[in-house]
Amino acid sequence: MKKPYCSLSREELTALKKELEQEYRKVQEKGLQLDMSRGKPAKTQLDLTMGMLDVVNSKSDLDAESGMDCRNYGCLTGIPEIRRLMADMAGVSEKNVIVYGNSSLNIMFDTVSRSVTHGVMGNTPWAKLDKVKFLCPVPGYDRHFAITESFGIEMINIPMTAEGPDMDMVEALVSTDPAIKGIWCVPMYANPTGITYSAETVRRFAALKPAAPDFRIFWDNAYGIHHLYEDDQDSIPEILSECEKAGNPDMVYEFMSTSKITFPGSGVAAIYTSEANIKDILKVLTYQTIGHDKINQLRHARFFGDMEHMRAHMMEHAKLIRPKFEAVLNTLEEGLGGLDIASWTNPKGGYFISFDAMEGCAKAIVSKMKEAGVVMTGAGATYPYGHDPKDSNIRIAPTLPTPEELAEAASVFVLCVKLVTVDKLLEA
Amino acid sequence: MKKPYCSLSREELTALKKELEQEYRKVQEKGLQLDMSRGKPAKTQLDLTMGMLDVVNSKSDLDAESGMDCRNYGCLTGIPEIRRLMADMAGVSEKNVIVYGNSSLNIMFDTVSRSVTHGVMGNTPWAKLDKVKFLCPVPGYDRHFAITESFGIEMINIPMTAEGPDMDMVEALVSTDPAIKGIWCVPMYANPTGITYSAETVRRFAALKPAAPDFRIFWDNAYGIHHLYEDDQDSIPEILSECEKAGNPDMVYEFMSTSKITFPGSGVAAIYTSEANIKDILKVLTYQTIGHDKINQLRHARFFGDMEHMRAHMMEHAKLIRPKFEAVLNTLEEGLGGLDIASWTNPKGGYFISFDAMEGCAKAIVSKMKEAGVVMTGAGATYPYGHDPKDSNIRIAPTLPTPEELAEAASVFVLCVKLVTVDKLLEA
Repeated sequence: MKKPYCSLSREELTALKKELEQEYRKVQEKGLQLDMSRGKPAKTQLDLTMGMLDVVNSKSDLDAESGMDCRNYGCLTGIPEIRRLMADMAGVSEKNVIVYGNSSLNIMFDTVSRSVTHGVMGNTPWAKLDKVKFLCPVPGYDRHFAITESFGIEMINIPMTAEGPDMDMVEALVSTDPAIKGIWCVPMYANPTGITYSAETVRRFAALKPAAPDFRIFWDNAYGIHHLYEDDQDSIPEILSECEKAGNPDMVYEFMSTSKITFPGSGVAAIYTSEANIKDILKVLTYQTIGHDKINQLRHARFFGDMEHMRAHMMEHAKLIRPKFEAVLNTLEEGLGGLDIASWTNPKGGYFISFDAMEGCAKAIVSKMKEAGVVMTGAGATYPYGHDPKDSNIRIAPTLPTPEELAEAASVFVLCVKLVTVDKLLEA
Repeated sequence: MKKPYCSLSREELTALKKELEQEYRKVQEKGLQLDMSRGKPAKTQLDLTMGMLDVVNSKSDLDAESGMDCRNYGCLTGIPEIRRLMADMAGVSEKNVIVYGNSSLNIMFDTVSRSVTHGVMGNTPWAKLDKVKFLCPVPGYDRHFAITESFGIEMINIPMTAEGPDMDMVEALVSTDPAIKGIWCVPMYANPTGITYSAETVRRFAALKPAAPDFRIFWDNAYGIHHLYEDDQDSIPEILSECEKAGNPDMVYEFMSTSKITFPGSGVAAIYTSEANIKDILKVLTYQTIGHDKINQLRHARFFGDMEHMRAHMMEHAKLIRPKFEAVLNTLEEGLGGLDIASWTNPKGGYFISFDAMEGCAKAIVSKMKEAGVVMTGAGATYPYGHDPKDSNIRIAPTLPTPEELAEAASVFVLCVKLVTVDKLLEA
């Protein structure tokens, strides 16, 4: 049935509902246990990195290029070879990088926390201000919003367009309100939309004229090299140099990690920013730790050697992930195309597909999925305070299940979308 | 010459000075480059742990006991086997442990930072209070004081006795001033004195009646299993259970790590506290990170297996460290014994010897050492704000140099102490 649902009569809808409910009961009887909720790599992807566990062993020389013994204390910014590799990953200079431990989320939390307690470059610590606000392009990443919410920072929704955040709105707000101290961005293969900011959007970011001297763009480039295709890859202008060209050298903190390149939780993560910001960060970081895990930094640097090898490694990931994205997208197209009850994105990279149901349906769909044994990201999670004003957006994370599980899960999803939508139309 | 310096005549002192200066010039000509400044393990100690780099390799099963794949995201509290091992290390239950990444210093920083921004168990965040104070037993650990100073927390010196901090003073202050929110403690083989708190001191800590409901003891048990001797080991009552017995179950955060057991910077670290505090910590930790490095946790758990093996491993460390402590202590005794110009501690564990020169001499001694090519911990570093009111305490860290280097460095130290003291006496 490829007639748009809105053209169906009440009788047709009622008949359809009966049919769908029957189908749903059959699915429930299967007792599925599937998970499309989080952007986790599958076991087959993790297997790609097993060789990294051998490159540093008891027979290895554990000295970094600098001659420093990686087994002992020290080296707050990361050993030279990992700074170089992580710098190349972002296309910036080594002097603009601090390599931390295993989690870029942790760096982002620390960056907000430090701004709250110690302030940014001599400006008033945010804890001493009456009001601090962040701009949040929506739909976006729930863990970003959770950080700012936990510090009591007020979050303002910014709609996403096909080119990135609505820059007219961003410019107007940032230039007039000194309480706005930051904006959360995932510029490539965004979480969850999968879209990549246009070059113009990036340049408009770099050219912002913030009212607050301590306004910073939190540029979470989590999927910067996470392409699905070898011959059809998005790209963005490098943000640090764009900011510098625009006369805003200190306006951006960029974040990347190897979480979805090697082992999530056992990778390395980095912050990229101006030398002046790095100096400012190190002033506090020196009290936080004596240094991050240099043996793991060495392991990563030696396993990849250079970006050419890392890019080749990412294409091995792509070979495993691509069929999963395609399976979901095909199932959505086959099941929902032409029905005019939903829209979704077609990403060329990253970990997510963003799905928009009819208004007021997202929570019910996710709940129906759960009752059928398929865990999805909670509806609303892609919005600050977990509140999607239209109750329409659902994040689909296709990487963790096996292709077979995924085919099943996507079919169940199509069924649940139809069922909830028919219910909604009948209610109207 | 074993006559006390105070009994020497001005002429004798002047002659001695000339002699010592000549000796010092000879030392300077050697162009030494030695370091007795930080508590860093020597390369020979690091070699003891090389086998740990092989226990997890590309052929290994990477599942934790719980069945969780250590290569993927998740597990905020640490995998079961490492929680058990770290719990055993402190003599507490697994449910009282969160295992983090590589640095207990980082956990301490985070613990203070979280109290500042989010508050402790529903109490007002410290950032919103006019004044927050910490008690600081002195001499103590410079990095503790640096954390509290960086958050603008006022630090109050508490003298150390042979039994631990002056508990009369601690009790009086903690019970009357609600602005006092914490105290820094290193209860075993303290940094830098090497003394271990008496059982009575520990019990008086557990029985404190703090005016502030969010007062916490920061119990940095950094050297809890770092004995120098197999048959002569200090011990303390386990603090969590003591606090519970005394009706103060939530009053303590304990910290330990494997930094000086395996590889500093590449170990695992833990916080130990009541289940109620753990729940309070996890509320924020869940925004901070998705999880720490579980592969490294697995590596540690599998390398040691249990505490028996870890204790045996520590005795291998002791065999390497003990001669160094003894060399320094012998050189001090031979060179300075009977002169009545200094005193020092004789630790049975840990990483430091604490040395007290005549008042007003510490800075000059450290500076003379530097000019002779031997780096010491800065004088004053063992006091809050880097200010030793008597300018007398110097921390000696004997582990890093080779035994030969150490013999040389200790002799130079004796020489500098004599020289500076003679100068001081001549000035008087």
